[in-house]
Amino acid sequence: MRSSAPYHISSPFTLLPGETLHDLEYNNMKIIQRAGAFHFGTDAVLLSDFLLLRKGDRALDLGTGTGAIPLLVCAHREGVCMDAVEIQPDMADMAARSVSYNALSERIRVYHMDMRDAPEYLGRGAYDLVACNPPYSRAGAALLSASENKRVSRHEGDISLPEICLCAGALIKNGGRFAVVYPAQRMFEMMTAMRAARLEPKRVRCVQHTLSRAPKLALIDAVKNGGEQLHWLPPLILRNEDGTPAPEWTRIYGK
Amino acid sequence: MRSSAPYHISSPFTLLPGETLHDLEYNNMKIIQRAGAFHFGTDAVLLSDFLLLRKGDRALDLGTGTGAIPLLVCAHREGVCMDAVEIQPDMADMAARSVSYNALSERIRVYHMDMRDAPEYLGRGAYDLVACNPPYSRAGAALLSASENKRVSRHEGDISLPEICLCAGALIKNGGRFAVVYPAQRMFEMMTAMRAARLEPKRVRCVQHTLSRAPKLALIDAVKNGGEQLHWLPPLILRNEDGTPAPEWTRIYGK
Repeated sequence: MRSSAPYHISSPFTLLPGETLHDLEYNNMKIIQRAGAFHFGTDAVLLSDFLLLRKGDRALDLGTGTGAIPLLVCAHREGVCMDAVEIQPDMADMAARSVSYNALSERIRVYHMDMRDAPEYLGRGAYDLVACNPPYSRAGAALLSASENKRVSRHEGDISLPEICLCAGALIKNGGRFAVVYPAQRMFEMMTAMRAARLEPKRVRCVQHTLSRAPKLALIDAVKNGGEQLHWLPPLILRNEDGTPAPEWTRIYGK
Repeated sequence: MRSSAPYHISSPFTLLPGETLHDLEYNNMKIIQRAGAFHFGTDAVLLSDFLLLRKGDRALDLGTGTGAIPLLVCAHREGVCMDAVEIQPDMADMAARSVSYNALSERIRVYHMDMRDAPEYLGRGAYDLVACNPPYSRAGAALLSASENKRVSRHEGDISLPEICLCAGALIKNGGRFAVVYPAQRMFEMMTAMRAARLEPKRVRCVQHTLSRAPKLALIDAVKNGGEQLHWLPPLILRNEDGTPAPEWTRIYGK
């Protein structure tokens, strides 16, 4: 059920065939997921934790999928509102119904929209922070995923990394931040695309499975028109060497 | 005492006033250092360890200072020869005398030369690997160092980072490597300068004082005309939390 405003989706809670309610392990919050479609993962949880947000900030999640990032952000941070943009209509609808389930309609607005339309419709320079968990693979770089949902969520093709950064750059106010989670292997490409959009890479945190392993993911944020100098955080270690959850994993998932 | 070839310095071992012999802690090898001048540090030791070198490779150290990197490389790797370029005449002379002291004249050649002249004189595309421990500060970014030696060794000004990368790029053969140690804060600038010289960043290793600290230094190598994808190594941890040397520190200093 669409609201009268174009793009904005507000749907009452229902569960469609094939969908399940996944526990967000905080305050009884839940998120709708569907077997065979893109499932939110650790990456979204880590990015939600990484965001620098203050009470009253306006934030946006680009390519929100089933809405994991805005739900996690609103679960853990008081006084923050987050908009969410998703191009796939069924995913945007799942996100909107999860928002209804968790009674967060006052704080999360879901837009079914191509992110390239977002600056014009949501406002240029309107956000303090834009988050994005972008596709990790290049167009044509991997086998076609089993489903169309997974293809769009995991592969560039419909939109490239430089285009994503340009969208984010247009949406963020001067001095605001763009935060991503991305494969460490492609960190340099991400930083280059950020800079081309006048988003200067700033905070960097590598994510390692254990402390003896090489980084697999990087959490990066960039400041719009910021100065060039990286601020490194200690690596984020997910597991102890014996496979048990490391202290930060417990902090992030347990708070 | 200069050899007949221009630039090449070959000096018999002597010790000038103010100089001392510093133990390299391997095979009785020593290096001449001078109080008040730039002293080689952990960075040079870590970079020497990081280099990918095979027997028979031609290697070059750009801005060798007192020659720590070629001395350490030749100490620890059989069958590798290394040339070394230094613009400061007294530092180049110290390096040449250290080569004589350690009887390595067959394997290390020291050139007193502006690195910008190196491609023409030493050969374009002549090297499998070029190493560099470049100045860490920008021109004018820090207070003037106590001595002229320290100023040239620590600050850009006489030569910029992009110029250093262009020199290296001209000296390295296709598929060869350029390896540096640099502040983690400036990793993105380094990678950008590398790419502009067709040296594509490849292996990356962050150096942390302890495992709970943020990375301070980055070891990076780039492949001339290589593909874009970083290969991350596990972070290099120097100390245990109690301040004792970590296992890799012991491996690097003890081998």
